[in-house]
Amino acid sequence: MVYFLITGAISVVFILILAFKILEKSSGNERTTQLSEIIQKGAKSFLLQEYKVFFPVIFALAIFLYFIVGIKASIALLIGSAFSVLAGYFGMAIATRANARTAWAATKSLGEALSVSFSGGAVMGLTVSTLGILGLALTYYVTKDIELISYYSLGASFVALFARVGGGIYTKAADVGADIVGKTEANLPEDDPRNPAVIADNVGDNVGDVAGMGADLYESYVGSIFSAIVLGSLFFGEKGFISVVFVVIFGLLSSLVGIVTTLLRAKKSADPAKTLRFGTIFAGVLTLTATFVYSYLVNWLNIFYVVFFGVFVGLLIGLITEWYTSGKKVENLAKTSTMGPANVIISGTALGMESTFIITLLIALAVVLSYKILGLFGVALSGVGMLSTLGISLSVDAYGPIADNAGGIAQMAGLDPKVREITDSLDAVGNTTAAMGKGFAIGSAALTALALFANFSAISNVSSVDLSNPYLFLGALIGGMLPFFFSALTMHAVGDAADDMVEEIRRQIKEIPGILSGESTPDYQKCIQIATKGALKKMVLPAVLAILSPTLLYFLFGPIGVGGLLIGATVSGVMLAIFMANSGGAWDNAKKFVEEGHFGGKGSFAHKATVVGDTVGDPYKDTSGPSINILIKLMAITSIVLMTIVRG
Amino acid sequence: MVYFLITGAISVVFILILAFKILEKSSGNERTTQLSEIIQKGAKSFLLQEYKVFFPVIFALAIFLYFIVGIKASIALLIGSAFSVLAGYFGMAIATRANARTAWAATKSLGEALSVSFSGGAVMGLTVSTLGILGLALTYYVTKDIELISYYSLGASFVALFARVGGGIYTKAADVGADIVGKTEANLPEDDPRNPAVIADNVGDNVGDVAGMGADLYESYVGSIFSAIVLGSLFFGEKGFISVVFVVIFGLLSSLVGIVTTLLRAKKSADPAKTLRFGTIFAGVLTLTATFVYSYLVNWLNIFYVVFFGVFVGLLIGLITEWYTSGKKVENLAKTSTMGPANVIISGTALGMESTFIITLLIALAVVLSYKILGLFGVALSGVGMLSTLGISLSVDAYGPIADNAGGIAQMAGLDPKVREITDSLDAVGNTTAAMGKGFAIGSAALTALALFANFSAISNVSSVDLSNPYLFLGALIGGMLPFFFSALTMHAVGDAADDMVEEIRRQIKEIPGILSGESTPDYQKCIQIATKGALKKMVLPAVLAILSPTLLYFLFGPIGVGGLLIGATVSGVMLAIFMANSGGAWDNAKKFVEEGHFGGKGSFAHKATVVGDTVGDPYKDTSGPSINILIKLMAITSIVLMTIVRG
Repeated sequence: MVYFLITGAISVVFILILAFKILEKSSGNERTTQLSEIIQKGAKSFLLQEYKVFFPVIFALAIFLYFIVGIKASIALLIGSAFSVLAGYFGMAIATRANARTAWAATKSLGEALSVSFSGGAVMGLTVSTLGILGLALTYYVTKDIELISYYSLGASFVALFARVGGGIYTKAADVGADIVGKTEANLPEDDPRNPAVIADNVGDNVGDVAGMGADLYESYVGSIFSAIVLGSLFFGEKGFISVVFVVIFGLLSSLVGIVTTLLRAKKSADPAKTLRFGTIFAGVLTLTATFVYSYLVNWLNIFYVVFFGVFVGLLIGLITEWYTSGKKVENLAKTSTMGPANVIISGTALGMESTFIITLLIALAVVLSYKILGLFGVALSGVGMLSTLGISLSVDAYGPIADNAGGIAQMAGLDPKVREITDSLDAVGNTTAAMGKGFAIGSAALTALALFANFSAISNVSSVDLSNPYLFLGALIGGMLPFFFSALTMHAVGDAADDMVEEIRRQIKEIPGILSGESTPDYQKCIQIATKGALKKMVLPAVLAILSPTLLYFLFGPIGVGGLLIGATVSGVMLAIFMANSGGAWDNAKKFVEEGHFGGKGSFAHKATVVGDTVGDPYKDTSGPSINILIKLMAITSIVLMTIVRG
Repeated sequence: MVYFLITGAISVVFILILAFKILEKSSGNERTTQLSEIIQKGAKSFLLQEYKVFFPVIFALAIFLYFIVGIKASIALLIGSAFSVLAGYFGMAIATRANARTAWAATKSLGEALSVSFSGGAVMGLTVSTLGILGLALTYYVTKDIELISYYSLGASFVALFARVGGGIYTKAADVGADIVGKTEANLPEDDPRNPAVIADNVGDNVGDVAGMGADLYESYVGSIFSAIVLGSLFFGEKGFISVVFVVIFGLLSSLVGIVTTLLRAKKSADPAKTLRFGTIFAGVLTLTATFVYSYLVNWLNIFYVVFFGVFVGLLIGLITEWYTSGKKVENLAKTSTMGPANVIISGTALGMESTFIITLLIALAVVLSYKILGLFGVALSGVGMLSTLGISLSVDAYGPIADNAGGIAQMAGLDPKVREITDSLDAVGNTTAAMGKGFAIGSAALTALALFANFSAISNVSSVDLSNPYLFLGALIGGMLPFFFSALTMHAVGDAADDMVEEIRRQIKEIPGILSGESTPDYQKCIQIATKGALKKMVLPAVLAILSPTLLYFLFGPIGVGGLLIGATVSGVMLAIFMANSGGAWDNAKKFVEEGHFGGKGSFAHKATVVGDTVGDPYKDTSGPSINILIKLMAITSIVLMTIVRG
């Protein structure tokens, strides 16, 4: 664990340098600075209010754990929550400052703008991984008990749930609301300052795609490392434990190198997609090389093989996701728009469902091979492998919303159209990386859930199950239902909050004279408040569901029922998440494809049909789909904690 | 089994009387007779071509089984297929003759029309249940081995797959194609004879909703009885066996009484919904009463309890389905149409997903209680209970398409608008019974799959599973993916076939002068051929998938992998099927609600938005959703057969 501290310290220094470098840059003229500040404040106020909702929950849980497990468990839980909150808060603070700076850098060159926006993303990516391992080390030093790290992981999961669900509802309520009135009724272009919800929309990109995504992957990262450490120690002792630590360190240091390389190449870059891809692959190759050398030296090559499967399958899932959400597949989908919106929805749904096939087989392949080589430890370690370069992959992912925000600020501040062109080209790359990031988040969540399940089954004392015991099947049936029900809840939440938003926008346009002519400023704050309120109100029931269901099933059907619950929830959750993410991504890009002038271009019948697809895809890919990742991980970690408590 | 023969014989006599009574009725004037004949021929030619595709498959399988199991297995398989085919063929022959007769009866009174259309449905409902038990008895007498009945069940499953998938693709390709060009482009009303695809659309109702649904429930009926007989004999010997036989007989005889009661009340009926509901509930109450008396006499009241749970939960699932696809829920859904099609899709999706919650808990409740009382046998027997009154519930279900067809014929033949009013009111009731029928089909498929799984686990020799063996989870992951992939295949198939249909309709309108003015007759046959070809081409891959996946998993991961596969497929399949059926049903009725004059009525912005929902819902509820029922049952029965073969 001392290695975690040293690596963490190096990384912290690096993060601080990056952050200062970003803050040194000019945030532009008065208007861009002001816009950036409004977004900062909106995002900050959302996070603070979100904390107000879940801090009491966390503290209540900590007190509960204090009485039934002990003080160490409470502390571990609090460390897990606090570090995840810290990562989210700090990462977002920088991201919301990098947006105007990216817009201003874009007045100079594409390379400058790429450099600033990617630096902003890198702060988020590195902070998540660094605090992830530092918190883990701290928990270990405080508790001196590997198994208590499960409470650390539980804390991280809790934060992730609120951040992902709350952020997801916020971002889509604002987006859908802004689109419906702004684009459809008042005929305003995207990011027009006359649209009262325009700032809320930009805030949403940050709280959803930056803070939400970060908390999600923080949880996966921590959960997979925790599982691998426990299973490694269990089956291979010290040797297993230390191997996990090294793989994690190799991944983080390689990410640092990859980020530096990317930044060095960014300024002269003419092709942002290529630059980002190079950095990511380079970091992956470095990690694998280091792991190979390590396994060779300790004469345990199996470590390398398993990590290789994880890295490789993670990469393949990204590529498959790209294949399904761009190019030929999207062109075919766009073509159906000439027949009408219903055809777009049917074809897009079929596309997303079809994509579950290869991705599932890839995940299965990684699991089978890893299991054959290193048993359950192998399954967990391949998950660690897949997530090892999280530092850079999350950076690439978080860069997207910053570029998107920069475009919005450029538009609202009335900068030279050339600036918007640059930010648009960055944003387009961001859309692809976002789709790949979602595939990666799902794949890693699936592997993490599997690793946690392996952990659960190792400690649940149900090594021998009668397959004809129907409680396994019943647990699976109820578990399989939860992702569907959970998605219904989040979709309803987006719908309700969007409705409130639409009403508010309509009210402002009607009651505040001169909004549409640009003579008076809309009340941005009011829209931010509505999105915040809508999101906070609706994130409690899903959280309760995720915690209560394993507990209830345990008392009804025993550990075997909980095992079934986890299997069912993971299976149907992974499929639903893949389907929703890829359908949503494909619809988004089909709309863009038509907007490029195909099948009649903007304003045509085909365009309107693809807008319907895109609007349906919004909650699919940005709210319900990603929230499922958390649901299955939180249920798994809750089950593990439950088992350790019940065993006493 | 001799009881099956006696009851079957009584029922056959009754069916023949019913059939002759229908054929005695006038098929109306020259035009209605002619239209009915075209539909008959279209449906018949589709079935014959369908048989051409799957007879070779069945025979190949029979020969294969002859070599590795023996002649008895082959014969059982052939009996299962032949009896299912016979039931579908005969039931549809009568249904397609009852349509014009219903239209003509509607010129007299609502009661007459209800009587004829329900008689047509009753022939289908009774034929399916009667041939189901007669085939079972025959198989038993030929093989003298209870376990070989699994091959009988496999034969029925095969036919069901082709009938449901093929019929589902056919009906929606014709429907969607006819709607897109007819309603949207050429502004023709529903069922207008100038629409070249109008006959194909009417044929589709029969091959999809009559023959397809019949084969689906034939499979469930046979599968649940088979499982209950095997498990009953295994755990309780002769006593268990005979109890199942009696419950089945009580159900069938009660259905007969229920049908007679309904027919007696039909002629004077002013409220068809009430009349049908009364008959169904009456049959259920009779079955329960008879079962109670029987269990009391043999001093084994547990039989009654378990059957009661099955009947009761089956009824509740129907009511919940009705609740989600009508009334307040649908009005709220219709209200979102004022915001546009995307909101209709999102809200409808959320509605369908939400509906999985209660239905899953109800199924779980029935299983838990039955298991507590009678173990695995209880689970299977409650499935038999749910399906015991299939005779009348399928009659109510099959009556819908007949009334729908009658309306089409009345419209095309230019009968008095009052006739159409009567058939429309019958059709409206049919839509609700169809939605409830779908809920029932899913619920019973879930219980049948569970019963088959119990059967599988009892013979698979994996009574002791290590929960940490990842092959269980992997199997579940792959199994959970299949319903999604399967749905993608069937949705693509509908899309492709509908595209071909659209092109053909456009071609005819362009090339045959006078079609739109009604001066010349369109080439109906050509459209029928296109729908047939589209359906037949696309039903092979899904079938292969359902058979190969358990076999492959067995060789890769052993029986535990197959167990996981069944759990995963059932869990995600049931959820997907419930979601698709209820979203589809709600969209359909939301459109009708707007058409009644709400939110602007026909032709309004809101109406167009609900039409999008309805069109998306078509393949959801009539092709992909129902096909999943078959997939999970066929996989389960294939696994059982596989186990008996492997055990030697």
